[in-house]
Amino acid sequence: MRLKIILEYDGSAFHGWQRQNGLRTVQEETERALAHIAPGTSVYASGRTDEGVHALGQVAHFDYEGTLSPATIVRALNHWLPCDIAVKSCERVPDGFDARRSAKRKTYEYVMYTSPFPSPLRRTRECYIGAEADAEAMNAAAALFVGTHDFSAFMTSGSSARTFTRIVYSSSVRREGDRILFRITGSGFLYNMVRIMAGALMRVGKGEKSADAIARALETGDRRLMPDVAPPEALYLVSVEYGDI
Amino acid sequence: MRLKIILEYDGSAFHGWQRQNGLRTVQEETERALAHIAPGTSVYASGRTDEGVHALGQVAHFDYEGTLSPATIVRALNHWLPCDIAVKSCERVPDGFDARRSAKRKTYEYVMYTSPFPSPLRRTRECYIGAEADAEAMNAAAALFVGTHDFSAFMTSGSSARTFTRIVYSSSVRREGDRILFRITGSGFLYNMVRIMAGALMRVGKGEKSADAIARALETGDRRLMPDVAPPEALYLVSVEYGDI
Repeated sequence: MRLKIILEYDGSAFHGWQRQNGLRTVQEETERALAHIAPGTSVYASGRTDEGVHALGQVAHFDYEGTLSPATIVRALNHWLPCDIAVKSCERVPDGFDARRSAKRKTYEYVMYTSPFPSPLRRTRECYIGAEADAEAMNAAAALFVGTHDFSAFMTSGSSARTFTRIVYSSSVRREGDRILFRITGSGFLYNMVRIMAGALMRVGKGEKSADAIARALETGDRRLMPDVAPPEALYLVSVEYGDI
Repeated sequence: MRLKIILEYDGSAFHGWQRQNGLRTVQEETERALAHIAPGTSVYASGRTDEGVHALGQVAHFDYEGTLSPATIVRALNHWLPCDIAVKSCERVPDGFDARRSAKRKTYEYVMYTSPFPSPLRRTRECYIGAEADAEAMNAAAALFVGTHDFSAFMTSGSSARTFTRIVYSSSVRREGDRILFRITGSGFLYNMVRIMAGALMRVGKGEKSADAIARALETGDRRLMPDVAPPEALYLVSVEYGDI
């Protein structure tokens, strides 16, 4: 039977999700934990997360022919997994379910904070944007991403993507105390797309770039207009949504 | 002139505050940064923090004969300090001010969280207490610490303390969302004292220890009644208070 799991992980010590020879990846650690109850089983995620990016709700699937219940599998995996990965849930899904191909929407959040000086205690989870930032201007700029666009200007080369058009369903920036949160939901994301968007929005928040530049980048696809890639440690894959499974 | 600085640091990669041969300490890194503007200057803190313990408001002093303003010294130190230490403020104080001897009260906070499973993203800053915990019982137990007591039962041997009596001005446990926060203010703290208290309170929160055991430990000074030392990564030195400087 096919099982769907939801994973949280601290991306700091991983070279992303996908198995790579000699590098520590979330996929490899998850398969190693699973091997204790289902040797040789491959685990497939909704997509790669990049090196250093965190997940609150990565989704993956695998096939399982054993007799353990989903609840027991959660406990067993959490027993064997290293402390920077946890399985939050496990449920049976139809055999046709594919964590990547069946995904309808993904939501990411990029967490910034304002403060007189960069904070040692926040630096591993949030990105410093300065003493003050214009969250309203950032929100207005973030709204430009909504819709169906060619996001070529918001992609690092080296992507394996064949098409650069994606649908963004929602994109906004809000303030919560001294935090500034950029949240975006889309049909899918290109390589480094959210971090390049966050980098551009941070410039807007500091008054160093106008929303017009973002509009122009969306029109022209010119990556040179969007040179900033915000650091990975403040980016979270929040959730992956599926239609009726 | 004598200057007082307030420091924030991420204790994860430090062997505490105090200079030790061959080990990375906050004191050594702070003095190394200061050496760029005041070579050979020693920096004295309100007290050691233990290996792995964080500070939001550690206080230290040093003597400075240069011409830079306190605001410029803050900027210079933050320029030279590694990213896991920051100076939050600098001000001139009377020559008689001593960060350790002049301290009247210190406040520590121990941060726990409830969740169905340990969280990979919280484990470096907070301590997992289980799916549920009785914060009211913890608060009632924490109140027992208030007052003047011999805290011998709440100290790891190896302390250089000569007397074990300390005054606790306030001690309470409160819930904030899925967090449970233990905050304590006292005249001073013995080696591992707050972590042993937190360890005992966590047992109380899980129903594995009664408040009576804490009362007995305070009466008898018997460390065997308090075997748990909660991990350091969830402990924060919040502030050090001085009288009128």
